[in-house]
Amino acid sequence: MADTGARRRGDRAGYVDDVGSVDKGGPFAVEEEEESVEKIFAAQEVPSWKGQLTFRAFAVSLMLSIAFTFIVMKLNLTTGIIPSLNVAAGLLGFFLIKTWTAVFAKLGIFPFTRQENTVIQTCVVAASGIAFSGGFGSYLFGMSERVASQSNTSDAKDFKNPSLSWMIGFLFLVSFVGLLSVVPLRKIMIVDFKLTYPSGTATAYLINSFHTPQGAKLAKKQVRVLGKYFSFSFLWAFFKWFFAASDGCGFENFPSLGLQAFANRFYFDFSATYVGVGMICPYIINVSVLVGGILSWGVMWPLIGKKKGIWYPDGSDDMHRLQGYKVFISIAMILGDGLYNFIKVLSITILALYKQIRSKDNVLPVASDASPESAAQNFDDQRRTHVFLKDQIPTWFAISGYVAIAAVSTGTLPQIFPQLKWYYVLVVYVMAPPLAFCNAYGCGLTDWSLASTYGKLAIFIVGAWAGQGHGGVLAGLAACGVMMNIVSTASDLTQDFKTGYLTLASPRAMFVSQAIGTAMGCVISPCVFWVFYNAFDNLGSQDSEYPAPYAALYRSIARLGVEGFSSLPSHCLTLCYIFFAAAIVINGIRDLVGKKWARFIPIPMAMAIPFYIGSYFAIDMCVGSLILFVWTKTNKAKAEAFAPAVASGMICGEGIWSLPSSVLALAKISPPICMKFLSSAVNQKVDTFLAR
Amino acid sequence: MADTGARRRGDRAGYVDDVGSVDKGGPFAVEEEEESVEKIFAAQEVPSWKGQLTFRAFAVSLMLSIAFTFIVMKLNLTTGIIPSLNVAAGLLGFFLIKTWTAVFAKLGIFPFTRQENTVIQTCVVAASGIAFSGGFGSYLFGMSERVASQSNTSDAKDFKNPSLSWMIGFLFLVSFVGLLSVVPLRKIMIVDFKLTYPSGTATAYLINSFHTPQGAKLAKKQVRVLGKYFSFSFLWAFFKWFFAASDGCGFENFPSLGLQAFANRFYFDFSATYVGVGMICPYIINVSVLVGGILSWGVMWPLIGKKKGIWYPDGSDDMHRLQGYKVFISIAMILGDGLYNFIKVLSITILALYKQIRSKDNVLPVASDASPESAAQNFDDQRRTHVFLKDQIPTWFAISGYVAIAAVSTGTLPQIFPQLKWYYVLVVYVMAPPLAFCNAYGCGLTDWSLASTYGKLAIFIVGAWAGQGHGGVLAGLAACGVMMNIVSTASDLTQDFKTGYLTLASPRAMFVSQAIGTAMGCVISPCVFWVFYNAFDNLGSQDSEYPAPYAALYRSIARLGVEGFSSLPSHCLTLCYIFFAAAIVINGIRDLVGKKWARFIPIPMAMAIPFYIGSYFAIDMCVGSLILFVWTKTNKAKAEAFAPAVASGMICGEGIWSLPSSVLALAKISPPICMKFLSSAVNQKVDTFLAR
Repeated sequence: MADTGARRRGDRAGYVDDVGSVDKGGPFAVEEEEESVEKIFAAQEVPSWKGQLTFRAFAVSLMLSIAFTFIVMKLNLTTGIIPSLNVAAGLLGFFLIKTWTAVFAKLGIFPFTRQENTVIQTCVVAASGIAFSGGFGSYLFGMSERVASQSNTSDAKDFKNPSLSWMIGFLFLVSFVGLLSVVPLRKIMIVDFKLTYPSGTATAYLINSFHTPQGAKLAKKQVRVLGKYFSFSFLWAFFKWFFAASDGCGFENFPSLGLQAFANRFYFDFSATYVGVGMICPYIINVSVLVGGILSWGVMWPLIGKKKGIWYPDGSDDMHRLQGYKVFISIAMILGDGLYNFIKVLSITILALYKQIRSKDNVLPVASDASPESAAQNFDDQRRTHVFLKDQIPTWFAISGYVAIAAVSTGTLPQIFPQLKWYYVLVVYVMAPPLAFCNAYGCGLTDWSLASTYGKLAIFIVGAWAGQGHGGVLAGLAACGVMMNIVSTASDLTQDFKTGYLTLASPRAMFVSQAIGTAMGCVISPCVFWVFYNAFDNLGSQDSEYPAPYAALYRSIARLGVEGFSSLPSHCLTLCYIFFAAAIVINGIRDLVGKKWARFIPIPMAMAIPFYIGSYFAIDMCVGSLILFVWTKTNKAKAEAFAPAVASGMICGEGIWSLPSSVLALAKISPPICMKFLSSAVNQKVDTFLAR
Repeated sequence: MADTGARRRGDRAGYVDDVGSVDKGGPFAVEEEEESVEKIFAAQEVPSWKGQLTFRAFAVSLMLSIAFTFIVMKLNLTTGIIPSLNVAAGLLGFFLIKTWTAVFAKLGIFPFTRQENTVIQTCVVAASGIAFSGGFGSYLFGMSERVASQSNTSDAKDFKNPSLSWMIGFLFLVSFVGLLSVVPLRKIMIVDFKLTYPSGTATAYLINSFHTPQGAKLAKKQVRVLGKYFSFSFLWAFFKWFFAASDGCGFENFPSLGLQAFANRFYFDFSATYVGVGMICPYIINVSVLVGGILSWGVMWPLIGKKKGIWYPDGSDDMHRLQGYKVFISIAMILGDGLYNFIKVLSITILALYKQIRSKDNVLPVASDASPESAAQNFDDQRRTHVFLKDQIPTWFAISGYVAIAAVSTGTLPQIFPQLKWYYVLVVYVMAPPLAFCNAYGCGLTDWSLASTYGKLAIFIVGAWAGQGHGGVLAGLAACGVMMNIVSTASDLTQDFKTGYLTLASPRAMFVSQAIGTAMGCVISPCVFWVFYNAFDNLGSQDSEYPAPYAALYRSIARLGVEGFSSLPSHCLTLCYIFFAAAIVINGIRDLVGKKWARFIPIPMAMAIPFYIGSYFAIDMCVGSLILFVWTKTNKAKAEAFAPAVASGMICGEGIWSLPSSVLALAKISPPICMKFLSSAVNQKVDTFLAR
């Protein structure tokens, strides 16, 4: 949730203990315990795997993929916080297919099955996942001249500007490997280990529920609510556009808490997106972000700012000045949190595997704390396992595919990034499969994908190996891309297999759908990024509407790996150590005190984001929390059923507005009005100036 | 509704055919037809008239009077549109007494009776009525130098600036006469003629319903809704304040429909007050105002503006230029509408009276189109008439009081306004009683008080009589004040007597309550106006937050009376004739086509207001209409029960904010931020200037 990298599929679910029932598809989550789901669907024939892959499913997937890529890209480039859009994807997929059926009734109607729904969901997740793992908000954009020139350091000439051709090529080279690495693991993870994969399970429940008559009715209502808030959010974004003639204008710069607070990035910026994000995220995330913002922009930066001329030289802000503290302290926290969770998840994984092997029992001990299996569950399991094992994907296909792609990549990636030697690539490809396994396994247990942590590991290792003179920064970032794509896809797609397992979708259909989705993503994402990149000149600059915080952070991590600590301003290293340790300690305390108290302790990873970009989005998110809180207090049932729809609508509406907005920007049509906020004194000066 | 003068008590009810059930106290309106109200209350003893006049009633009345005076004053000074606040007064009176009872439980609790509720309602209406009939937004402020200097005409030196002392003295002299003139009419109007007085009846139903157990429960819920929207509206106004550092800043100048539209006064100004007003007003009023705005600022003024240098000389705008067209065309429409309705109401009055006298039947023919009286109604009538006639107010007291005050006024008013000779005053006092009777009678029939029309009549007559050389403008405005106070109070208080009749309140208690309320009003209103006058330097200027449109209009009417048409710019007179005639014709058509079609024909009086001040408030009001419309469509019962509470809350909250806002202005504390709206081009210039 909080880190652009740490949790993608498992974003909010990352904090398993904090995830409210809202996450699990609301009122559907408890269904299975009560009765056999598969008995309800027993009368429905499961289509053949080819029957699940309909044309309409991919047409709908393409539409949704483009839409969701815009949304994810916008989120990537604003704060890097990407909430789970699974509910929205599930709902909209359902809605679009229903519409499709109504419109094309004459072409002969196939019944809309839950398998088809799962195929759409899988395809969309695969495609829009690339928008995240492609690193457009992190490593890939971090390579660009725009980000490089900001830091004003020795590596500033070490850049590679984005261009459509190499981005698409790069993504095609690295994105399919993850898919292939998952295939052999499929049966072990899902059938043998019975891993839970909370997000995948929740999505499956949602899809299952849609296809029961009662669920379809509720889904219809939810779609209507989603549509309403979607329109509202879209129109609001449209309205806001008119008032943002230039930087510093418009609602994005509304000093709603006063000018003093605004100067320190505390303001409510009327963003429907982040109010929606706040409604989906658990309270603790929103509070953590706010606490982080208050700690950094409210206390630390003003204090450090007073040391100007003592701790660091006077002059316009850059990496050697206040900016350096912001970036590196936030990196320290992210790394501390990442390290803690890496070790935690890894040790859980190893321990569980060890027990698994020793007991020679295929049922995982961690899963056995569930209630003893009922007859209904047994029936479900049998049927699901039967379907899941029917359509096989040959292991030789997966392995030979992996080797072939690895070989091609080793040869071609150094062509794209001359700094990335072929042996670095080879090492990454050798290391990747076990790491992918670890990540998929850990994600199955904790719903927590550590992809970005593995990515950062690759930055450090390859960066240090390449060294400063040989473009280590770029080599590190590129290696991060390779690693992240493999590892992230592995966990994402195993999640999808779980969803498929629970909805009786054929694994072969899933695999094809994932492959098609990945291919879509490899083309759509770079194109969407390209639109943003060309439309907004100030993309990536800290004060702009699209600060892309993780681009600078990832680049700084790479620099740290290459140059060591030499480039930091005074006392910065000490502060970094303190916050690195604090992140570990706080995480430790959270795990020690138990769920009851942990929900009052902020999460270091979430606290780190506002360190860099300020806490305006934290205020939006807390407003979202507040709305959800009040709603839940007044009408719990309604809030649980509709809050995810409201939130998704708000996120999607403003997200989709970024499509016309960037088209307008590309066409050099700037908004007609500037809504400016001036202090009373400045206003008098301006009035006198204008009266002249 | 639409004219600051034409309808005060009967403001929205003025257009009887347009008044929705919302007006009649929502769900209570039909009660009487079903069963005997008085049978429900039969067990309740009616307190003696002294028992109805409790200390707490007047304490609560004082609080509410101050609050409502602020609200009415704000409305007076912004657009002059004053919706019915009866529901709010009734609800808040009920709520405050309940609170009072809870807080002062130890002092011994008198039961809270509906009679006491009526006493409060009457007192508040009498007090806040002065805020309107005192002419602070019209004739009285029209005398001031600020308004006089705007017009840039020969009478500009003819002014009398407001000052607390003479305003209070003037009001005490003229406000009680109306009260005394009503007393002898009371029995004729209420018991003999059985006039309907729709507003008074609606208020009575509301009060009766509050005192049934079920009504009390609903009232409690309504109070909670009112409170919620009150707080919201107050906080929103507070929030808006911060961004209005100077003229042209803040939400009041938000070009929400674009800069071009803003230049022509089309914008949504985020005013909760007028959204609330729109929710209370019938749809046709809101639409009329918008149509008027589009016709004038959208079509006519831009067209006339193109004739600059041809029809009127170039130069800064004043009464001899575009301003003149705006003012006089809008006056022509108001006068046309006023004349039509004056004749209409007068002829209905005379016709009805004639029939009444000829048939020697005390039941009025107009009232006889009601269903034949049921037994329940008979019981109610008997009991009500019995109570109503029990406590008499001697006629000799009323007549001698009237003569005494008239004598004193004739002597002293010329001291205040040297231009107003004693014989003018005497004439007005002689003419007043029959006019007061006409107005009270007409209002009883149509719910339409023509006070301001009588006032304008006085302006013309006395102004023309005095003539230009002898300060005719001031004499006319002062005479208008005398006339309006008498005539307006007469209809207001007869309405209250109707309410009293229907709630079994003693007429003597009502009289005392009215007298006390009037006395309160004579002190509170000038003080509140004084606060506004001193707090806002630009009060009355056309572009300010408080344009007080009717002040300039009334002054222009007086000038017209004194100088004739000589001062108008070219073609203005022709246009005035056209619009004068159009107002009459449109009204005629409205009456001819019947209710079914009349609701689609705009009302000239309502169309005339935006002619002068622009249609921003019309857009607010239409937003209110839209909200009400959607609400009614989705949940009719809830909308009818709570819309008046929501609207009242929104009006009151922002209205009350004008209290702290003017205190802040008096203390010379200006808001810290200016939210400015600049076109893209100007913004670039300003940015360059600020960067210097």
